[in-house]
Amino acid sequence: MRPVDEKSVLSGWRARLHEIIFETDTIAGRLFDASLIAAIVVSVILVMLDSVAWINESYGRAIYAAEWFFTGLFTVEYVLRLVCVARPLKYATSFFGLIDLMAIVPSYLDLLVPGGRYLSVVRVLRVLRIFRTFKLFEYMTEGMYIVQAISASRKKISLFLIAILTLVVILGSLMYLIEGGENGFTSIPKSVYWAIVTMTTVGYGDIAPKSTLGMGLASVVMILGYAILAVPTGIVTVEMVHASASRKSSQACPSCCAEGHDIDAVHCKFCGSRLN
Amino acid sequence: MRPVDEKSVLSGWRARLHEIIFETDTIAGRLFDASLIAAIVVSVILVMLDSVAWINESYGRAIYAAEWFFTGLFTVEYVLRLVCVARPLKYATSFFGLIDLMAIVPSYLDLLVPGGRYLSVVRVLRVLRIFRTFKLFEYMTEGMYIVQAISASRKKISLFLIAILTLVVILGSLMYLIEGGENGFTSIPKSVYWAIVTMTTVGYGDIAPKSTLGMGLASVVMILGYAILAVPTGIVTVEMVHASASRKSSQACPSCCAEGHDIDAVHCKFCGSRLN
Amino acid sequence: MRPVDEKSVLSGWRARLHEIIFETDTIAGRLFDASLIAAIVVSVILVMLDSVAWINESYGRAIYAAEWFFTGLFTVEYVLRLVCVARPLKYATSFFGLIDLMAIVPSYLDLLVPGGRYLSVVRVLRVLRIFRTFKLFEYMTEGMYIVQAISASRKKISLFLIAILTLVVILGSLMYLIEGGENGFTSIPKSVYWAIVTMTTVGYGDIAPKSTLGMGLASVVMILGYAILAVPTGIVTVEMVHASASRKSSQACPSCCAEGHDIDAVHCKFCGSRLN
Amino acid sequence: MRPVDEKSVLSGWRARLHEIIFETDTIAGRLFDASLIAAIVVSVILVMLDSVAWINESYGRAIYAAEWFFTGLFTVEYVLRLVCVARPLKYATSFFGLIDLMAIVPSYLDLLVPGGRYLSVVRVLRVLRIFRTFKLFEYMTEGMYIVQAISASRKKISLFLIAILTLVVILGSLMYLIEGGENGFTSIPKSVYWAIVTMTTVGYGDIAPKSTLGMGLASVVMILGYAILAVPTGIVTVEMVHASASRKSSQACPSCCAEGHDIDAVHCKFCGSRLN
Repeated sequence: MRPVDEKSVLSGWRARLHEIIFETDTIAGRLFDASLIAAIVVSVILVMLDSVAWINESYGRAIYAAEWFFTGLFTVEYVLRLVCVARPLKYATSFFGLIDLMAIVPSYLDLLVPGGRYLSVVRVLRVLRIFRTFKLFEYMTEGMYIVQAISASRKKISLFLIAILTLVVILGSLMYLIEGGENGFTSIPKSVYWAIVTMTTVGYGDIAPKSTLGMGLASVVMILGYAILAVPTGIVTVEMVHASASRKSSQACPSCCAEGHDIDAVHCKFCGSRLN
Repeated sequence: MRPVDEKSVLSGWRARLHEIIFETDTIAGRLFDASLIAAIVVSVILVMLDSVAWINESYGRAIYAAEWFFTGLFTVEYVLRLVCVARPLKYATSFFGLIDLMAIVPSYLDLLVPGGRYLSVVRVLRVLRIFRTFKLFEYMTEGMYIVQAISASRKKISLFLIAILTLVVILGSLMYLIEGGENGFTSIPKSVYWAIVTMTTVGYGDIAPKSTLGMGLASVVMILGYAILAVPTGIVTVEMVHASASRKSSQACPSCCAEGHDIDAVHCKFCGSRLN
Repeated sequence: MRPVDEKSVLSGWRARLHEIIFETDTIAGRLFDASLIAAIVVSVILVMLDSVAWINESYGRAIYAAEWFFTGLFTVEYVLRLVCVARPLKYATSFFGLIDLMAIVPSYLDLLVPGGRYLSVVRVLRVLRIFRTFKLFEYMTEGMYIVQAISASRKKISLFLIAILTLVVILGSLMYLIEGGENGFTSIPKSVYWAIVTMTTVGYGDIAPKSTLGMGLASVVMILGYAILAVPTGIVTVEMVHASASRKSSQACPSCCAEGHDIDAVHCKFCGSRLN
Repeated sequence: MRPVDEKSVLSGWRARLHEIIFETDTIAGRLFDASLIAAIVVSVILVMLDSVAWINESYGRAIYAAEWFFTGLFTVEYVLRLVCVARPLKYATSFFGLIDLMAIVPSYLDLLVPGGRYLSVVRVLRVLRIFRTFKLFEYMTEGMYIVQAISASRKKISLFLIAILTLVVILGSLMYLIEGGENGFTSIPKSVYWAIVTMTTVGYGDIAPKSTLGMGLASVVMILGYAILAVPTGIVTVEMVHASASRKSSQACPSCCAEGHDIDAVHCKFCGSRLN
């Protein structure tokens, strides 16, 4: 991602274009990014509105035209990005490169498969570019911080998910046997779906137990889900405490050996000696 | 908010009025505030009851009269506040000043826009004055403590919200394509609404997947929401632990004026001078 | 609660009775308590079953008889408790004394007000006696631990509740204006009820927004509730961490000055010197 | 579980079989376990699909045959396990031994009780074997870590559950008296079920209060459930923080045999002897 080294490889106009499209140091670069994000948000909103029946009837044609306008715009932008980057293949296979491609494909796909253009809401992922544009590096770090906490609990959470899935299959089957088809539990997969809806405390109510025994088992499932809800919260919280705890300097004072100094400390807070 | 300095600027009766209306040290002042809060609570309950059809039919006229009585009362009070304060504009644009104005505007607005008077429930915000009246400064600190924790996690939470919104737009669109209009997912905005209802584990059940594939995706959304629920809880908890753990000394170093020393610090951690 | 001192005041048979009914040291005492708890659980289950239509039709008479049997039993027990205790008034006004009275009153009340006997499920509170019977003092401490954590966050939680109530009144009124009676939001109190159902993520679905604007506001309410859900959890967790943290001895080693010893430590874990 | 000692007791082919079926060191052993888990997953999915009406109609016979094929396979495997293990009774009564038996019983049971074969989804529990197969010992430790945290909060959680049950019985009975049968609260057990559905924030909406007083009480129940939700989360989080913070040394003191020393301890905290 270090475009500094790349620039020297690029000839005049490509280097200039690279500066505008990929960097955010110049005014032109920031302007480009800001209008890009605005275009993305507008185009996503258009796709969403297009799916509303009465809006589609009244303004369908205008929206259709606008969608193709944005698709054209993003296609041109994508080609320009490929042109002005030193290693096009590396960009094309990067996270943002793939999202940029996915943002234009559905519109063309729609010519083959009707309805496929609704998939272009995936463009909304391009909005994540906002973090880079507005130099929200601080946000980036915060994000890393959360990702790090989740990643550290990855194993515990997958273990937790396997346990939940096992539980949900067994509870769902039991409910299928107890309630049966006449109460909405028409098959085991549907009963498992009910168990998931219940344990996550979503509770649509489209399927609900009606027999006394079923209500009893459902109560157990709910209280279980209630208690289990505490586990992932606990996991993530502990990891976050860990991730944020390791911010004290590990340095001991060379004079009085006291520890626990802040990272920005210059002098020992107990004896006043200079820290290294 | 220090009214002590203001008093000296004010002449006799305005100073006296200021003492009653704005301060809570004298018996008259406390009595005024207590009756004010009682009046606010009663007027809010009246507005709420007025919206109930059968109460409106039976007691509509009496409630209408009472509402105008309270509006008159609050209008007089607002004018008195403007009169007895040293800098009326500063009060009028302060947090409580704006709320005091908002508490009387809807009643007058109702003369122009029917139904507008229901907006006067906004008066309930004036109840927050209760913290000041009963010298609940301790509560205030507690509130600050929570606000501080939330404020410290502001960035993480907004990052989290952007991520959730992105996710919800994509999941909603997918469900729109899978379920379609005949199962209630009549448009992408409505499907996004469904995704929000599901991920927050509210689960009204007014829109619910009916196809097998839709139920499968819904299960993923629910378990995802379940795991994601742990993140904001973790964020706020960690910040609260921080806020309550690092009660930093408020003392500034007498030599270099740096702040943020630990409570147990003996020497300034920046320049090494002895703290008092 | 120290019955040891009371016994000396009581004459022969009252002391013996006191030992059986109030204490749990002798076999007779434990047997009495165990059968009492069994009787309570059975009588509560009977009251619950009695309310089921078909059970009431078939076994109504038998259950009615059994209920009066248990009421008689508990009345005799209550009188015996009053007789064998040194200070009857103190017992009658104590926590368990009041519960013991409330367990028998509803049955007699039913003679005056039909249906009143269902209130006798309040007997279930007597089951809390189980903690004392089976010497579950350890559970008691655990309970104290939780109560202490909740009590310590009392102020924060009441502040939180006032803020929630204020928010819920304003959001409910807004929804009433947006959705109106035809979509189920027939009055402000009902709309406030909807706001509570939504913010707590219960989501019955008996009242749900139908207009686009209403769905938009509902989404905001849900995401808000989602974020707010983190606050009480954070509050209680922090208090629990505090309550459980203060378990290390504050004593420093007299020889090497190291701190952080366990409460049960006899020797310093770093230098091996004897702690005081 | 140490099969190393067992092997020496077993004769040639039984030792070889033991190596394949019970151990995961050899290629044959790992291959066996991998195909076993695949067979389990496929057979569970088949049982689930078999319950779907239209799949059952079209492919019922094929699935029936496949189910018996898998039952046969698992029966043979179970017998082989009994044969090649040194102490068959010990295996048969172990956790995995009982699950292995439960995986085949329902199919045979179905010959007596129609529908009993759906119970064979209990086979899904055998998937837990996956942790051993793929040497996911690390996952095991993680699991232990969670189990330890839950186990440590066992007492607090059961105390919490008794309190919740008591509360739910009382609230349910109150709602039964307030709402009555015409609003869906047809009996106390059903009202208690409603209270559980509401307090756990599941909220199906199949039973919901309709009277004003009922809605008021329901609001209290919801806000209570909201606040109470924080307690188990807090309990588990605190235990997890403890479990991950105080990773105590497993070393016993060479002089007084006391355990439970901190990892950084140099001397025994009870007798002062030097630890190794």
